Amino acid sequence: MKYALGIDFGGTTIKTAIVTSDGQIISRGSVPTGMPATPERLLQTTVGACRRQLEEAGLTPADLCGAGIGMPGTVNQETDCVEYANNLGMTSFPFIRRLRDELGIPVSGGNDADLAALGEYMAGAGKGASSLLLVTLGTGVGGGIIVNGRIWSGCNDAAAEFGHMVIEAGGRPCTCGRRGCFEAYASASALTAQADKKAAEHPDSLIGKVYAASGHVSGKDILQALKEKDAAAKEVFDEYVYYLAMGITNLINIFQPDKLLIGGGISNFGDLLLEPVREHVKTYRYSRYSEKNTEIGIASLKNDAGLIGAAALTKVFE
Amino acid sequence: MKYALGIDFGGTTIKTAIVTSDGQIISRGSVPTGMPATPERLLQTTVGACRRQLEEAGLTPADLCGAGIGMPGTVNQETDCVEYANNLGMTSFPFIRRLRDELGIPVSGGNDADLAALGEYMAGAGKGASSLLLVTLGTGVGGGIIVNGRIWSGCNDAAAEFGHMVIEAGGRPCTCGRRGCFEAYASASALTAQADKKAAEHPDSLIGKVYAASGHVSGKDILQALKEKDAAAKEVFDEYVYYLAMGITNLINIFQPDKLLIGGGISNFGDLLLEPVREHVKTYRYSRYSEKNTEIGIASLKNDAGLIGAAALTKVFE
Repeated sequence: MKYALGIDFGGTTIKTAIVTSDGQIISRGSVPTGMPATPERLLQTTVGACRRQLEEAGLTPADLCGAGIGMPGTVNQETDCVEYANNLGMTSFPFIRRLRDELGIPVSGGNDADLAALGEYMAGAGKGASSLLLVTLGTGVGGGIIVNGRIWSGCNDAAAEFGHMVIEAGGRPCTCGRRGCFEAYASASALTAQADKKAAEHPDSLIGKVYAASGHVSGKDILQALKEKDAAAKEVFDEYVYYLAMGITNLINIFQPDKLLIGGGISNFGDLLLEPVREHVKTYRYSRYSEKNTEIGIASLKNDAGLIGAAALTKVFE
Repeated sequence: MKYALGIDFGGTTIKTAIVTSDGQIISRGSVPTGMPATPERLLQTTVGACRRQLEEAGLTPADLCGAGIGMPGTVNQETDCVEYANNLGMTSFPFIRRLRDELGIPVSGGNDADLAALGEYMAGAGKGASSLLLVTLGTGVGGGIIVNGRIWSGCNDAAAEFGHMVIEAGGRPCTCGRRGCFEAYASASALTAQADKKAAEHPDSLIGKVYAASGHVSGKDILQALKEKDAAAKEVFDEYVYYLAMGITNLINIFQPDKLLIGGGISNFGDLLLEPVREHVKTYRYSRYSEKNTEIGIASLKNDAGLIGAAALTKVFE
């Protein structure tokens, strides 16, 4: 059996995993990224992490059909350079090519959000779909697009910025310089910011008490408060779901994928989130009279999606 | 040389054309659709139009590599049925299959907006792109998606409803039942409705005088008034462009296609429209620091895009 090495290169940690041909992780590791660091230093850290991962799994490069790596930035597929990775201070650096030379095996790279979508498509909740959108609700709102079984990353590897779709002209300011972006309403940060506000206004509510004690309401606090029927938390969450469902309906009207999966921290709300979103989309999608419609679900691979998607860049699943 | 027969089936007329392998139309015709009519009647009208078109071009079915037809609705590619064409009162009717039997040549069908995008991609302003969005600004806002040289119509042939992307939560009502849809701001109808309003408020403006005389301000009136530096027309048009550019920026952040083409009646505004849209997109797109970015242009085939796209469903361009 051949294995693939999946690498998920993040701003804080570099995760590695040995992935089998049926999408299982049989060994995993992680090292601190060690920012700030030069691109060369980051490369050497990655090489070290890969070698240790192989050793730990008792494998040699010959056991691998290759490695895949997800980067928090854009990877040029033609030059195998990391074109631009803002948080790593990396511009036009031949990271993928150098990694291949150092490891002596085929290495492919891609954007981390795209690879998470590919992971879900190959081995997660997206299995069996031929087209998929992954909408990731975390600090920001990102995602990935799978069309006809392949990542669609646009003419410049910068597609799928779902968070930067304006849904409220002139609305909340967004870090991207526009106003009213989906991200400013549907990110985890947007949810907790609204919860903080509401909590301050309603000190007697459950979230109000959390806020008074800690100065901040977390996603977990909101989830707990919803379970305990806290009215203030429900108001915040209902508004959040309204905007989330609106943006998702937009994406479905545009793409009509087989599946749309919600990932990121907010996906832990599970059915509390999924049911009202499905209901809204069912009512408002333009294709409500079609026989076939997009299935909406929760991404299943969580933090492993990127590792498995990276592995999927090799031929391990073929 | 082999030819293709392109058919553009509209609610008012059925247009036909003989298309050459280099995307030229060498003969064309048109018959009234004759609504209301049964699906069977519409089929026979189409068959008649096709036979007359061949006769007029001095061709026989043996000269054709096939025919393609664009329908104002959804065409199921597996069953060759028109699944749903609202304006024709057609549901699950084997229009494409029957047309093939009647004409005795290969016939393929597709959605008319998708085929317009395919036409621009094969022989119009989209030539040379590998991905393309066509955004059609007419009575409504529609369009088509070309990815890796192929139409992307989603899991239910209902994708590319760009007009039904909410850009202003709670905004202007849309015929689809939502509020704040792109269509309610960027369609030709939205532009003229806003112009009517502004004209009524400013009776001394150029558009005010047109309105007083005829009760309505048309797109042509607005274009003329802009050329004559009418301030009221400029206010309406600037607002229109603001929303249009916002929606286009959204689509680019999501897709990052090689090209995005603006079609439909509004595209006659040409550079008056294109320049401010390009400027807005350049400033606000998420990928403004990418080396490569989507080119924005005006669709070039106008009303022939659908006919040529329909012809492109055959093998005539291969």
